[in-house]
Amino acid sequence: MSQEYPSTSPRLAASHYVIGADIGGTSLRLALADDAGAIIGRWSASTAGTADAAMVLERIREGADALLREASVPSESISAIAAAAPGVTNVDDGIVVATSYLMGWRDVPLRQMLEAEFGVPAFVDNDVNVAAIGELRAGSARDDSDFVFLAIGTGVGAGIVLNNELHRGSIWTAGEIGYMLVPGTSEAPIKRGDPGALESLVGGEGIKQQWQRLWNSKATPLPKDSNATQIFDHALQSNALAQQVLELAARPLAYAIYNIALILNSPLFVLGGSVGIHPALAAATRLVLDERGPRVQPRLTCSTLGADAQLIGAVFLALETAKRQMALATS
Amino acid sequence: MSQEYPSTSPRLAASHYVIGADIGGTSLRLALADDAGAIIGRWSASTAGTADAAMVLERIREGADALLREASVPSESISAIAAAAPGVTNVDDGIVVATSYLMGWRDVPLRQMLEAEFGVPAFVDNDVNVAAIGELRAGSARDDSDFVFLAIGTGVGAGIVLNNELHRGSIWTAGEIGYMLVPGTSEAPIKRGDPGALESLVGGEGIKQQWQRLWNSKATPLPKDSNATQIFDHALQSNALAQQVLELAARPLAYAIYNIALILNSPLFVLGGSVGIHPALAAATRLVLDERGPRVQPRLTCSTLGADAQLIGAVFLALETAKRQMALATS
Repeated sequence: MSQEYPSTSPRLAASHYVIGADIGGTSLRLALADDAGAIIGRWSASTAGTADAAMVLERIREGADALLREASVPSESISAIAAAAPGVTNVDDGIVVATSYLMGWRDVPLRQMLEAEFGVPAFVDNDVNVAAIGELRAGSARDDSDFVFLAIGTGVGAGIVLNNELHRGSIWTAGEIGYMLVPGTSEAPIKRGDPGALESLVGGEGIKQQWQRLWNSKATPLPKDSNATQIFDHALQSNALAQQVLELAARPLAYAIYNIALILNSPLFVLGGSVGIHPALAAATRLVLDERGPRVQPRLTCSTLGADAQLIGAVFLALETAKRQMALATS
Repeated sequence: MSQEYPSTSPRLAASHYVIGADIGGTSLRLALADDAGAIIGRWSASTAGTADAAMVLERIREGADALLREASVPSESISAIAAAAPGVTNVDDGIVVATSYLMGWRDVPLRQMLEAEFGVPAFVDNDVNVAAIGELRAGSARDDSDFVFLAIGTGVGAGIVLNNELHRGSIWTAGEIGYMLVPGTSEAPIKRGDPGALESLVGGEGIKQQWQRLWNSKATPLPKDSNATQIFDHALQSNALAQQVLELAARPLAYAIYNIALILNSPLFVLGGSVGIHPALAAATRLVLDERGPRVQPRLTCSTLGADAQLIGAVFLALETAKRQMALATS
């Protein structure tokens, strides 16, 4: 860190940069950010066919090199890296314990791999938790210390923040609400790999399946293979069939929020993920919550960071990792 | 506290004593304990017709005086008092915000009232939370830092311990699980004062009502006005009707536990309260949890403190209050 930079490049004189990575089931996204958390470069690549952790690490290296080159930042100016992993993550040991579909990782020591590759301190956490940190530091929960981030995409999960800290649970699986049981969900046991009871109704795949089950060419101009976003758009245009499918997702989602609010007394729920950020879902969910009466009425809002929540969360976690390291070094 | 005690009474030379109080809807119970938390005297009285907070305070004074007299402990040896209140309690301000049935308190400054009456630091909290502290310090959760205490009596509530601390929520209502919605509960909105959706099936009154609904003199020798404990005893003796009613309570209870375990990843649930401590309920609930498969399998145990959980929790909270006060005084 004592390296001298040419005076012609003021950016290089910034104290340090960090890299945030969002490892998804279908894509890998990276951000290079300065020491204030401002993103100065982005990079992404497909992870289709790249399930192997060593290959994912290679792609992260490749993306980081491209970002550094493009921003004229020397590799030595990177002070930390943080990655969001699509699965259960042991944050203390930096191990991705298990990922679901596509990746199938088991006990991958990702933090250690990143530290060996980049020679800087690293941090890894579950992607939903990382997104919640994004919302807490720079998104919809900036003014809150207690809230629940609901990631609703293909799957459904929650990031739970209590007193400004993530609650991760005794074996790192807190927030696995895709399996919740509420009125209307199936009570049948779930086979490994199958979507959870709540997920089957509220996740993107579940919504598509409901649509296909009820679809009828007379009732809608939308095709049978529409996705959740298209269906919700159509619901906003008052199509009755789309509204029915929206309600079939909103009701169990509202019940899940109600249950979590009862248990934790969380005052704010932030809806995120590709399906969760649709305003039609928040509005329909709010109507069901209102039916429950005044006892439990948490605020409900859509993510302001949208698809960037994980990436921005990873940037902030990398900054915090760099700060911890500096505090250790000077103590 | 610098007072000299006669040397003839070695007990009086103990550094201090505390009082724990459990204010219930039907009874008030007090314990006098030494500085190791050992209970050296108990006192109880009915609170029927004593809803007024000033009257409850008078009864606490009366009971404390009786306990001190009986144990030959001078009033000046009491170093703190803690009380469990049957309702939502603001622990920071020491205010009982609201109690349900029987009492109907609103914003009662109970801590201040106790401190004025006894001239020692006081602490007040919700009774279910206090019972959870009892289990954590001296009961079924002695070896755990994360667990959920489920109080199942007339009503149903939870005390949530995360990292050895109670999670009380942003407006002190965390753990109000009596209103949870799971498959089988009514989805109808709940009117103020009515039992919650889960409570209607799992609470003592709900179990009695299920029994009365299904009761048939040919099916059982037990009378129609049996209570939950009698019904559960009868279920253990293989009576089919009693087993059916037991299952009607165990299934939604298991679903509620499953949901909480998904959300918090709590590894241990302790069943307490007059209905909750019955071993038939734990066994039947375990069977339903087992159906869910290996993903979420928290341990499930009955309270070892039973009806004493609140009282013992109050004693420990009083001891901790006394210690905090001493630390403040010497800092």
